Amino acid sequence: MRTVVWKSLGESQKEGLMRRPAITTGAQTQASVADIIADVRERGDESLKALTQKFDGVELDSIKLDKATLAEAEARLGEDIKLALRQAYDNISTFHRAQKAQPLKVETMPGVVCESITRPINRVGLYIPGGSAPLPSTVLMLGVPAQIAGCRKVVLCTPPPVADEILYCAKLCEIDEIYTLGGAQAVAAMAFGTQSVTKVDKIFGPGNAYVTEAKRQVSLAANGAAMDMPAGPSEVLVIADAGADPDFVAADLLSQAEHGPDSQVVLVTPAPEMAEKVADAVQQQLTTLSRAEIAKQALGSSVIIIADTLTQCVSISNRYGPEHLIVQTQQPRDLLPLLDNAGSIFLGAYSPESVGDYASGTNHVLPTYGYTRTYSSLGLADFTKRMTVQELSDTGLQTLGPTVMRIAEAEGLDAHRQAVDIRLTKLQQTQDSEDSLA
Amino acid sequence: MRTVVWKSLGESQKEGLMRRPAITTGAQTQASVADIIADVRERGDESLKALTQKFDGVELDSIKLDKATLAEAEARLGEDIKLALRQAYDNISTFHRAQKAQPLKVETMPGVVCESITRPINRVGLYIPGGSAPLPSTVLMLGVPAQIAGCRKVVLCTPPPVADEILYCAKLCEIDEIYTLGGAQAVAAMAFGTQSVTKVDKIFGPGNAYVTEAKRQVSLAANGAAMDMPAGPSEVLVIADAGADPDFVAADLLSQAEHGPDSQVVLVTPAPEMAEKVADAVQQQLTTLSRAEIAKQALGSSVIIIADTLTQCVSISNRYGPEHLIVQTQQPRDLLPLLDNAGSIFLGAYSPESVGDYASGTNHVLPTYGYTRTYSSLGLADFTKRMTVQELSDTGLQTLGPTVMRIAEAEGLDAHRQAVDIRLTKLQQTQDSEDSLA
Ligand SMILES: [Zn+2]
Ligand SMILES: [Zn+2]
Repeated sequence: MRTVVWKSLGESQKEGLMRRPAITTGAQTQASVADIIADVRERGDESLKALTQKFDGVELDSIKLDKATLAEAEARLGEDIKLALRQAYDNISTFHRAQKAQPLKVETMPGVVCESITRPINRVGLYIPGGSAPLPSTVLMLGVPAQIAGCRKVVLCTPPPVADEILYCAKLCEIDEIYTLGGAQAVAAMAFGTQSVTKVDKIFGPGNAYVTEAKRQVSLAANGAAMDMPAGPSEVLVIADAGADPDFVAADLLSQAEHGPDSQVVLVTPAPEMAEKVADAVQQQLTTLSRAEIAKQALGSSVIIIADTLTQCVSISNRYGPEHLIVQTQQPRDLLPLLDNAGSIFLGAYSPESVGDYASGTNHVLPTYGYTRTYSSLGLADFTKRMTVQELSDTGLQTLGPTVMRIAEAEGLDAHRQAVDIRLTKLQQTQDSEDSLA
Repeated sequence: MRTVVWKSLGESQKEGLMRRPAITTGAQTQASVADIIADVRERGDESLKALTQKFDGVELDSIKLDKATLAEAEARLGEDIKLALRQAYDNISTFHRAQKAQPLKVETMPGVVCESITRPINRVGLYIPGGSAPLPSTVLMLGVPAQIAGCRKVVLCTPPPVADEILYCAKLCEIDEIYTLGGAQAVAAMAFGTQSVTKVDKIFGPGNAYVTEAKRQVSLAANGAAMDMPAGPSEVLVIADAGADPDFVAADLLSQAEHGPDSQVVLVTPAPEMAEKVADAVQQQLTTLSRAEIAKQALGSSVIIIADTLTQCVSISNRYGPEHLIVQTQQPRDLLPLLDNAGSIFLGAYSPESVGDYASGTNHVLPTYGYTRTYSSLGLADFTKRMTVQELSDTGLQTLGPTVMRIAEAEGLDAHRQAVDIRLTKLQQTQDSEDSLA
């Protein structure tokens, strides 16, 4: 890891340090994804089977997994991993249940009631990547909020072969249907539906460049499916002061680095000696890791920044806007009010990133690539939508009506004015006739 | 307006009725917008002045409006319109203030604290279209939540000439800077910044095809700006039973129709005689409108659907997913629990759409084009972002650590396991040495 001193940098060097490597989706990727989507829309299941044969080398008898397969998976798993996944499930459930929005009802003026009500998104699709290691934790991070939100249909796609841990987590989350599909074809199938695959309204989950591009394309298509958030390489920024344990800091940097060669890893510290100690500890711990080669590549583009003060560390972090922000200082909570633009924040020596990745209760699907400036950590809100309601009584409209008519006039919208006027006039007529009867 | 009987339709006819006309952004629009963005990024203010000359026919001395211009605008306006705008401002403020998220703090296990905290998006840009009629109400709908969220910088672009009403609303909302810019060039300027224009993190507001395409392009660009929600033509669906006042229903259909020739207008009723009465009332009221020509065009593609029952009306509405949903029935609130996929709902005879457009307190920026299935009515949440926090005590990590390590193992992520292990080992050593001292 290279070390730089913040104050010795010019503005353009600082800018360069804060910038992420460009993500470019080649025209060829875009075109093949468009072809895959078109083929799935046209040929449905037939296309899905052909593409699964081509990309995964697997001949699918059935696209949908049956209940027997789920039961077998559960039976094969050891009690220890099931217990761990259940514990993670419980904590994630507890934290996401607490996010339930309360219905809101406000009388803005006498007789003018405004409300905000929340409804689950009806049908959601979860994408779980395959590859060298299964990601049961991602099933929980997507499946738990879908379950708590009360989405009526929750389906999951993951490429074959499907790990037992994934199926066990799907069972905990009461996923309705599981399809052994991966890649752009899985996204296309969920966005538009096929004979076997249920069409969904919104698609969640990580994936490679093809999956990401497919999510983007179907989110722009008429009658396609919305997507969770834009994707980017995973990131951590650690703020550590002179009192931090360099071994802990190094372990956190390495757990980010092992995610992939494009992982972004940044340490910011006001203590030059901490920079050195952490760099040494990283080298030492690196030798013991099974994914050392991947971590080494990520560390190649990583950086240790020496700042003047802790306050400057905070402002560097706010400027970078990391996905994960770990604060290992004497009084980490004191910094919290100053921290901004982070996906998830880990306070203190005993809150390594891996607890949030798996089991503390927070969601590990987080904005990255600087999107922390505008996007939120995934939560219950992403599986629901808000509708507003208004109900005016006759006196409510009599009170508010003139205001509405005056603004409609200013905007030159006659019919808008008339929709109020016609009601007020009839109300007046009713009142007049009541008065004359009295 | 043509009338159809729902049960007499085949599935593909129903599907056709529920489908919106395709929005296609031509390759030429895409390319000119890309050119404009590139030019603004390269030449900054110089480009903005040239483009404003070209598209608006106005030579700008200064891009930014000065305080004197604002004061003059206020002085020119009549008291009645100022009073109306202030009333709207008050109601919108009341409803959006009530949307403030409470910070959330949950102990998911002993010693494992998870939190959700909300921060304003730092810098936001509001786009207000120009054209035949000014839209001061849209300034309020965007400016009020930005103000209440506490965004640190709120800027506004609107093409010249700028209406006094717009400037007055900008003053009420304490907008920091106003630029006389319109079109794709305004969006580009706010997304990337120029000598005169402050760069923002997220852009809100309606606009023509160029503005919409520009928002889309800058939201996909690295270091660009996020956008509020996808755009589409405005829509209303009215559910009216036999007891509704056909004049009120007709007035509501017409106020939607006058928005533009592409406005979508739908009436669903279980009462065939209501269909006839409303159609007649529409024809009659139409003659009195200044924007009758526009309304007529919109009505050309509009439809009255006769359903069997009120329940079927609800399910047709849920399937269509209208931006505005007006319920004029005897007991409108009874239907509310069944209603889904709507932007804003107007209950009862005295809640015309125009009250929500202007002054009831709800936001008039709403998902349309079927996006109600997954997107929310614009609200305070869109001007903020949620970050999660976790803080584990040493005993918290001792309790949760084994779970995290077991899952990390299952996912093959060594360093993740080690980040916990290294901490638990040191804790054990400390305890052992304390025990031996005791
Ligand atoms: Zn991780
Ligand atoms: Zn309207």
